[in-house]
Amino acid sequence: MMYTYWKQGIAEKNSVFEVYFRDLPFGSGFAVFAGLEHVVQYLQDLHFSDADIAYLKDVTDYPQEFLDYLANLKFTATVRSAVEGDLVFNNEPILQVEGPLAQGQLVETAILNIINYQTLVATKAARIRSVVGDDPLMEFGTRRAQETSAAMWGTRAAFIGGFNATSNVRAGKVFGIPISGTHAHALVQAYQDDYAAFKAYAEVNHDVTFLVDTYDTLRSGVPAAIRVAKEMGDKIDFQGVRIDSGDMAYISKRVRQQLDDAGFTDTKIVASNDLDENTIQNLKMQGAKIDTWGVGTKVITAFDHPALGAVYKLVAIEDDHGEMADTIKLSSNAEKVSTPGKKQVWRITRHANGKSEGDYVALAYEDVASLEELYMFHPNFTYINKTITDFDARPLLQTIFDHGDLVYKLPKLVDIRKFAMQCVESLWDEYTRVLNPQDYPVDLSQAAWDNKMAIIRRIKEKINWRQA
Amino acid sequence: MMYTYWKQGIAEKNSVFEVYFRDLPFGSGFAVFAGLEHVVQYLQDLHFSDADIAYLKDVTDYPQEFLDYLANLKFTATVRSAVEGDLVFNNEPILQVEGPLAQGQLVETAILNIINYQTLVATKAARIRSVVGDDPLMEFGTRRAQETSAAMWGTRAAFIGGFNATSNVRAGKVFGIPISGTHAHALVQAYQDDYAAFKAYAEVNHDVTFLVDTYDTLRSGVPAAIRVAKEMGDKIDFQGVRIDSGDMAYISKRVRQQLDDAGFTDTKIVASNDLDENTIQNLKMQGAKIDTWGVGTKVITAFDHPALGAVYKLVAIEDDHGEMADTIKLSSNAEKVSTPGKKQVWRITRHANGKSEGDYVALAYEDVASLEELYMFHPNFTYINKTITDFDARPLLQTIFDHGDLVYKLPKLVDIRKFAMQCVESLWDEYTRVLNPQDYPVDLSQAAWDNKMAIIRRIKEKINWRQA
Repeated sequence: MMYTYWKQGIAEKNSVFEVYFRDLPFGSGFAVFAGLEHVVQYLQDLHFSDADIAYLKDVTDYPQEFLDYLANLKFTATVRSAVEGDLVFNNEPILQVEGPLAQGQLVETAILNIINYQTLVATKAARIRSVVGDDPLMEFGTRRAQETSAAMWGTRAAFIGGFNATSNVRAGKVFGIPISGTHAHALVQAYQDDYAAFKAYAEVNHDVTFLVDTYDTLRSGVPAAIRVAKEMGDKIDFQGVRIDSGDMAYISKRVRQQLDDAGFTDTKIVASNDLDENTIQNLKMQGAKIDTWGVGTKVITAFDHPALGAVYKLVAIEDDHGEMADTIKLSSNAEKVSTPGKKQVWRITRHANGKSEGDYVALAYEDVASLEELYMFHPNFTYINKTITDFDARPLLQTIFDHGDLVYKLPKLVDIRKFAMQCVESLWDEYTRVLNPQDYPVDLSQAAWDNKMAIIRRIKEKINWRQA
Repeated sequence: MMYTYWKQGIAEKNSVFEVYFRDLPFGSGFAVFAGLEHVVQYLQDLHFSDADIAYLKDVTDYPQEFLDYLANLKFTATVRSAVEGDLVFNNEPILQVEGPLAQGQLVETAILNIINYQTLVATKAARIRSVVGDDPLMEFGTRRAQETSAAMWGTRAAFIGGFNATSNVRAGKVFGIPISGTHAHALVQAYQDDYAAFKAYAEVNHDVTFLVDTYDTLRSGVPAAIRVAKEMGDKIDFQGVRIDSGDMAYISKRVRQQLDDAGFTDTKIVASNDLDENTIQNLKMQGAKIDTWGVGTKVITAFDHPALGAVYKLVAIEDDHGEMADTIKLSSNAEKVSTPGKKQVWRITRHANGKSEGDYVALAYEDVASLEELYMFHPNFTYINKTITDFDARPLLQTIFDHGDLVYKLPKLVDIRKFAMQCVESLWDEYTRVLNPQDYPVDLSQAAWDNKMAIIRRIKEKINWRQA
């Protein structure tokens, strides 16, 4: 496609691409945006290496002039994006690339790859956070992540969504995420005995959590842990026991009783075993005595919906007169029709209670912040509408690159996480509940809606006219 | 755990770890092993960098001696593995690490991360291949892959499993996979007209496939494609049209008719839109006129089962007398109990028909290849059994690293793919069908079974004795 643009002389035409997704994953009422830091790294490093050019020369018949064009390519586009940790919703632009057509095209795939995955994991993590209250949440998913970069960036996204720590030491090093873990079954197997293994572990480590289910949790693991803790006394901090199999509700209650009876009432129970927001919510309902949750596979692969499905669509392009023309992708399915034009998303919050009323997707030139009242209506079912006054309108898309220059200061990871937690807090519970949440309103401005309808009509007329 | 092993003086004890998974993914009757090349790269590069040591010094209170031990660590273990493209099944070792306990522990997570994902994708790809016959299969999943390394290695795994090409140009460069793709909707949107866009594309490219569903497939896209093809005549090769939305069964038949009526009977129809083995099989049943399949999200994320769930278990360790002692992980669920001892897997094939009769998991010292007859029985339901004669027994696990030295020559990717196709061919159709395949027998040798039962009994007796 770049070659076509270049050869046809339209590669430098100003264009606007926008990223959006059509459906929230996991039946969630919201999503947590993540991936921007990796996108920034990718765009800062964007270039065709000598090896890239040599490969293209080998497998294509591109003329040397085009290969030279690629070799000299510098990223000069403007990127506006939601910031990490902010909430994003379906059918609104969450990232926007404005600049030369060929460049906008080139970066599509990598941006989608990064944003799709990291937003998915941050969202899954936030859902899990929403059901555990203040319980510690550990990310244990590296061995099940889909290859190495998912293990790294997925761990970071889980942290943004509300996890406290990870067992991925490399992610700890690279991103500064707190690291936390317990020993594995292999330690117990190496000694072929719970007691001998726990003793060896306790002689060497001060803060200990014992994995008690290698042979028999209630008859061997926990009694051995208690025996070691009593023998070691003040020499160790017997922080917890971990259970990783069996009927968690039943076993955790029995383990709690065993620990309490032995006087270890402050020792925590850590559970891990294919947990997610649904199993955790069920365990809590059953009164399971679990204090700390280790979640792996289900968060790091976004197991129940492993692709966000965000797309990247051209919404405007410079016409032959140098004016920007808005463009559309049609579909026989009304919800799949893209919304033309360069846009901004405004998060509308009532001053009275600080709660978000909905998102208002306007054309970029509209000054929503200065409006006294706002008429919001459903973009498909327009009879669903309301008028808002006394509100705050916050623009979602911020300028990250300005004509190729990074102008955004990447925040610290802990601050991103804190911001995410605040954003979730700003939603009504009806939108954040795990099962069957209300649809959060994502409305089009009157101008955006009118523009869309006019363009649909124009294209349909042209098709009809050609057919006739 | 490494610190505990080191401090307790058991870090250098010889140990054997094995990778296996408990359930085949997707309800599949087989899995295609992939990931070994990346594992080899990982192990060849295994070391603690200065930055790693500095980080550990910062966040732990490990003594300098231990940090020095890590800094000087060299990988000296022996690795035996299934080779890429071979078939693997549940509850058999697919990779084995034998060497110093601390090293075996260290490499667990990365090996699982790599093997879990790549085997999953190769398996999904092979299932899709099994329903398309000889139709070309294109991998289009990069933008939905779970971050960047999944996009690369997942594409390679899909190729191993039977895909023909990828739209990921970088994977083409790095792995030598054929690259193939079409233009996107953006090209049509850039011209705001199917005809103008296709014309521009055809003026610049010789081999053209037009994406026809930007506005209206039947009323605008295909007629425009035909018009351009007629105008351009021999100047282009009008290879195909791609449809990416709508009712594929209905639309493809109508498109075929339009193309045929215009005389383009050799022009192919490419379909892409969340396809997988189930949707493709359905489209074929409905007589959809689709020649080439573009599959993205569903293969690259293994959408319907995005984690293989392979585990890494200690199966033997050197005891205090320098003898190897077999170890086990128990569970209240019989199928989750690990099988102790260092093992080899033998693929049993009848000479008469070249078809695989099952896999025979034996202790490593057993010489299965030289047996005249083999008694095979189900490891849980032992009354299911058979005796085989006139068979070939092929060992699954091959030596990859010998005491840290790479002794295995990594095959060419095309040869891996060819081998995978041959292996699938060697299975009865009853094992390869997509829905409700028969269970392929994975049996334990009598010695492996007896050993397992004896160890279970011994541990249970010890627990009972302690309780009493």
